[in-house]
Amino acid sequence: MSAPVYLDHNATTPLAPEAREAMLRWLGEDFGNAASAHSFGRRARAAIDLARQQVAEAVNAHPTEIVFTSGATEANNLILKGFAATQTPSVLAISGIEHPSVSEPARQLARAGWKLRTVAVDREGRVDPDDYARALSESPRLVSVMSANNETGVLQDIPALAAQARSAGALFHTDAVQALGRIEVDFRASGVGAMSLSSHKIGGPLGAGALIVDKRVELAPLLAGGGQERGLRSGTENLAAIAGFGMACARAVRDRGRFAQVANLRDRLEQELRARGAVVFGEGAPRLPNTVFFAVKGVAGEALVSRLDREGFAVASGSACASAAPEASATLLAMGVETGLAHCAVRVSLGTDNTFDEVARFLQALARSLGELKGLVAQAA
Amino acid sequence: MSAPVYLDHNATTPLAPEAREAMLRWLGEDFGNAASAHSFGRRARAAIDLARQQVAEAVNAHPTEIVFTSGATEANNLILKGFAATQTPSVLAISGIEHPSVSEPARQLARAGWKLRTVAVDREGRVDPDDYARALSESPRLVSVMSANNETGVLQDIPALAAQARSAGALFHTDAVQALGRIEVDFRASGVGAMSLSSHKIGGPLGAGALIVDKRVELAPLLAGGGQERGLRSGTENLAAIAGFGMACARAVRDRGRFAQVANLRDRLEQELRARGAVVFGEGAPRLPNTVFFAVKGVAGEALVSRLDREGFAVASGSACASAAPEASATLLAMGVETGLAHCAVRVSLGTDNTFDEVARFLQALARSLGELKGLVAQAA
Ligand SMILES: Cc1ncc(COP(=O)(O)O)c(C=O)c1O
Ligand SMILES: Cc1ncc(COP(=O)(O)O)c(C=O)c1O
Repeated sequence: MSAPVYLDHNATTPLAPEAREAMLRWLGEDFGNAASAHSFGRRARAAIDLARQQVAEAVNAHPTEIVFTSGATEANNLILKGFAATQTPSVLAISGIEHPSVSEPARQLARAGWKLRTVAVDREGRVDPDDYARALSESPRLVSVMSANNETGVLQDIPALAAQARSAGALFHTDAVQALGRIEVDFRASGVGAMSLSSHKIGGPLGAGALIVDKRVELAPLLAGGGQERGLRSGTENLAAIAGFGMACARAVRDRGRFAQVANLRDRLEQELRARGAVVFGEGAPRLPNTVFFAVKGVAGEALVSRLDREGFAVASGSACASAAPEASATLLAMGVETGLAHCAVRVSLGTDNTFDEVARFLQALARSLGELKGLVAQAA
Repeated sequence: MSAPVYLDHNATTPLAPEAREAMLRWLGEDFGNAASAHSFGRRARAAIDLARQQVAEAVNAHPTEIVFTSGATEANNLILKGFAATQTPSVLAISGIEHPSVSEPARQLARAGWKLRTVAVDREGRVDPDDYARALSESPRLVSVMSANNETGVLQDIPALAAQARSAGALFHTDAVQALGRIEVDFRASGVGAMSLSSHKIGGPLGAGALIVDKRVELAPLLAGGGQERGLRSGTENLAAIAGFGMACARAVRDRGRFAQVANLRDRLEQELRARGAVVFGEGAPRLPNTVFFAVKGVAGEALVSRLDREGFAVASGSACASAAPEASATLLAMGVETGLAHCAVRVSLGTDNTFDEVARFLQALARSLGELKGLVAQAA
């Protein structure tokens, strides 16, 4: 059997050769603690400075606005809890389709006395303008809306939402994890106060991410200690991962054009899916060029994913995790999709290395799998 | 000039070949998000399971007691804040010589309503038994005492301290970062409730660490989100770093015997230092086999470190960080060392790869450096 085809780039991406190269330097003879005063420490510090520059350039921020973290989960927790810790409990608003690393800390804050206001999305998964306005009228201190949804790929109009939140006196944060490298992400121009990024979704290594944050925002550190990252994130800096993240950012900016080709593959895929009677979620909204979230009524997402896995194709089901009693996608439920159909959801997320041939072979495997699984459904009925 | 000699293993260690090997697998063709249901995800999950087993074996814990984190700073913050979040504010006791990643979160808790009780140490840097008993009589909920100090290498009698804390009804935590791999560390036998570990201090990569915690201890996650690590530490698992950490643990256990040789080098070093009139801090206490923290009166630690750096030897000064107005070591001040002498402190921390020849050359460079710096002091006087 040929090597399996990876079509799950929204979960994690293969490491880009340039990022690997940048890492390997720090996994060989060279190493160091960037806090050390000697030559090993100085070289480590210089590598982190370079990466900070690369990340800043990729999102049009100033290097001093970058706080390196272990990933976006940490960046999201840092902005929500770190900001909340400097305020008296008040109102916090998030969209109804945030990643758990935003919605779970928000729930923790709700248990600690904050009022959590969840903003509705429409059937396409876009933030509902009226409900957003109503939420802002409750004077939230902090508003968090993701740039691109990890399941549907649906994009929000971040500059507009940020401007409204700012007018209402709120700090606006966006989780830009899935947007980075795939569409333009501009910290300065979008007018957001804070933004979360993750390295491993853009061809960088696991273990690095960043919170980009306006320096006027007061934050309490989540990880206190040695005082690294301007006191906002203590812990010996993960040198190799940060260097790899920096290089992945530089590459992502350079390669953004390649996503036009990815969009072509995505369109081909969707055309065929619709021909087979699949529903494509969020199809009426602007979306990421690489993501298709679909369902074929009567065919359970989990079953289809595992059947495709045996055929050598790695895709994801709509379920948030592989728990024993899988739940339907919270994103789809927020969009008003009925639970039965939500349980049929499957996500294909492409990368710049996927080829037309791979997509064609995937479509054949999908046809076989659907035929087989529908047959089972028919037998059971 | 020959390659610089690294004598700062308490800051960070070179990556062990076995750990590098384990990492490289996940930085090449293979990769994956351990939460994914497909073959990539399953392989990632298996690698993390293996690492969990290796860490558990190294410290005699059960694999289910391991919570992987991004490092020990996070593990320390998690136990302090995560435990405190499940309690009504009460008393928290820590020793006066804890690493900032314990003492800073403790200070954050103090600002949030906890009473912070700092336990005194004696002139050798050992926890003062009388003051410890007094602190326990105040019924702390949580007690944290490090196994081995990162600056002096002084060891505490953890099983005894843990037993007393348990009798007083407290959860006992130890930061075992500097002990792991250098002396025996036994989670079960020591009777502690929680223990922090760091990968990059034992030949593993940066970016991984662990909190080992008794499953009866209720904790709130610091990083909430996707629910990884039994819900105690969300965020896509840092696969390569965790695999490398596991392998470094396996190797550390196998190689512990080599620290007898390291102790010989250390003894040689101390002998010579004393002959040159240096004070060795904590010399009357049981210490790590690899650490010498010394001072030569009248010679500033920072100056000596930078002079030795130019000679090609990487050592650390007693100062916690390289800030513009360096502070004297908090550990030394807690031991009652006067500030002037504390400013002269320099730390040499050896690794298993350091040779007798390197130590001999270091001593020559030290003699030259001291001669020169003392000359400067004499001129200035
Ligand atoms: C939208 C979004 N936010 C946050 C995260 C968390 O990122 P990380 O894996 O770096 O913690 C993810 C991915 O899991 C994501 O898709
Ligand atoms: C005793 C001690 N605890 C905690 C830490 C923090 O470890 P990490 O660098 O993994 O965050 C260190 C090292 O910096 C240390 O020496």
